[in-house]
Amino acid sequence: MILQSSKDPATGPAAGRLKRSMDRPVMPPDAAANWETFVALWERAHAIRSFIWDHPASGERNLLGHFLVRLRRFFAVDFCFGALAREGEREVVEIGIPKTGINRLPADFSRRCLDLLASGCAPIVWNEAGDKFGFRSTILAPMSSSSARPFGFVMLGHSLRKSYSVHELFLLRALAGDLSRVVRELYAGQQRQHQTLEICHDLKNSLQLILGNVAVLRQSLGEARAEQEERSLHAMERAVDEILRAVNRLLAEPPRDGGVACSRKNGARRSDELKNLSKL
Amino acid sequence: MILQSSKDPATGPAAGRLKRSMDRPVMPPDAAANWETFVALWERAHAIRSFIWDHPASGERNLLGHFLVRLRRFFAVDFCFGALAREGEREVVEIGIPKTGINRLPADFSRRCLDLLASGCAPIVWNEAGDKFGFRSTILAPMSSSSARPFGFVMLGHSLRKSYSVHELFLLRALAGDLSRVVRELYAGQQRQHQTLEICHDLKNSLQLILGNVAVLRQSLGEARAEQEERSLHAMERAVDEILRAVNRLLAEPPRDGGVACSRKNGARRSDELKNLSKL
Repeated sequence: MILQSSKDPATGPAAGRLKRSMDRPVMPPDAAANWETFVALWERAHAIRSFIWDHPASGERNLLGHFLVRLRRFFAVDFCFGALAREGEREVVEIGIPKTGINRLPADFSRRCLDLLASGCAPIVWNEAGDKFGFRSTILAPMSSSSARPFGFVMLGHSLRKSYSVHELFLLRALAGDLSRVVRELYAGQQRQHQTLEICHDLKNSLQLILGNVAVLRQSLGEARAEQEERSLHAMERAVDEILRAVNRLLAEPPRDGGVACSRKNGARRSDELKNLSKL
Repeated sequence: MILQSSKDPATGPAAGRLKRSMDRPVMPPDAAANWETFVALWERAHAIRSFIWDHPASGERNLLGHFLVRLRRFFAVDFCFGALAREGEREVVEIGIPKTGINRLPADFSRRCLDLLASGCAPIVWNEAGDKFGFRSTILAPMSSSSARPFGFVMLGHSLRKSYSVHELFLLRALAGDLSRVVRELYAGQQRQHQTLEICHDLKNSLQLILGNVAVLRQSLGEARAEQEERSLHAMERAVDEILRAVNRLLAEPPRDGGVACSRKNGARRSDELKNLSKL
């Protein structure tokens, strides 16, 4: 049995029971045939890779969901699961495809897997995970930047015992690596957007202050104010309007592919595809 | 002879002389040994991949230079060359490592290669390129997004005839793919920065207008102005200062890894490494 409930899974009594086992992968004897099999699989996986790169997702949940739907189809497994634990945030984002599969996972599963993964970067395979764990075959691939400890993982679960070829293990790791990079870019974009929003908020407060003082001055000068004074007050109001328009342009993020052409036709098709897929 | 001077290399008389030839790649007969060789090579290439991902480069020239230095070392070739033709810009960014190797390339080489590459995405190998072309072995890998035609390529040149294994060809293509993505992210960042700069410029003009009108009002009201009026004028000046500070914060781009931890030690090491490497 793996990942049995324990106060401290890394050092507690359950730690000894965390088993990693891997069936000896099957490999055809002919090198050329073997390589061709791998290249064909790699090409097939390219669709997943280019999908996550070319479709700006609206958030990490959406991105992870799109990725897992494709990963599940690619590996033909019962269940795909992904977890993301962003630095400095308590909440772990968890997605299961299908959703109901999550009920089969032990308590605090994601956090404990992340602790386990912190020690290495190769996929971890469990077979015969026991009756408490819903899947007889489970494989985990970490997501990390090269310098930091894993900030997430993707998991394939299968009710029947399933052997993965070395090619499949390699591909799972490579795809998790690609997802890591897309997630990092997404986080960077969110951080930028958050910072811009904060700054624009401060900026609008200052603009409000200017408008308030224009009103105070207009009242203080009364009906008797000179034409030139009214022109100045009005010019300041117009300038505030201009700044507000600039701020709104700032809040509209430019497209992600920055300067590399994408045909209108493809763009439209993708937008429709995203709409359909967001009905996950 | 390849890429002979011609007004229209794609359809002109020289087009027929563009030869693609590839030595039959050498493959060890044992599948397991073959796979292990590939995985070892892939792991070695990982250093190039993570370098370009983890080191925010100051521009495409810098990024391409860093990449090519590592690519040349990895493939142990005499010369590495890279070209980037950004959508809508006439200039092609070209980098050769070492620089002097560029002198051995025919005229208008990059543009003609890009036309040639537009038709496919596999690496193109030329052997025995002839006496007009400085290298007996040349291999080109395109850089592209999945939807658009290639926007650049990397090239390995070797003075002696050199055979590439299927693994090496695969890796060259994969590395060019990674570089494509990093370049696209870099372009997107530049586009964002350009847009922000433009907006901030408009914004500063409007602020200048407000300050100018505060000065006009102060002069118009003269020494006899009420204390309340001076307070309003002063408050508007302070608000403009606040906005200027906010604008300067906007112009300072946040770190690229957005929320994924990077240890201080690694950060410092990398910064030093970048300084050393920028002395290319």
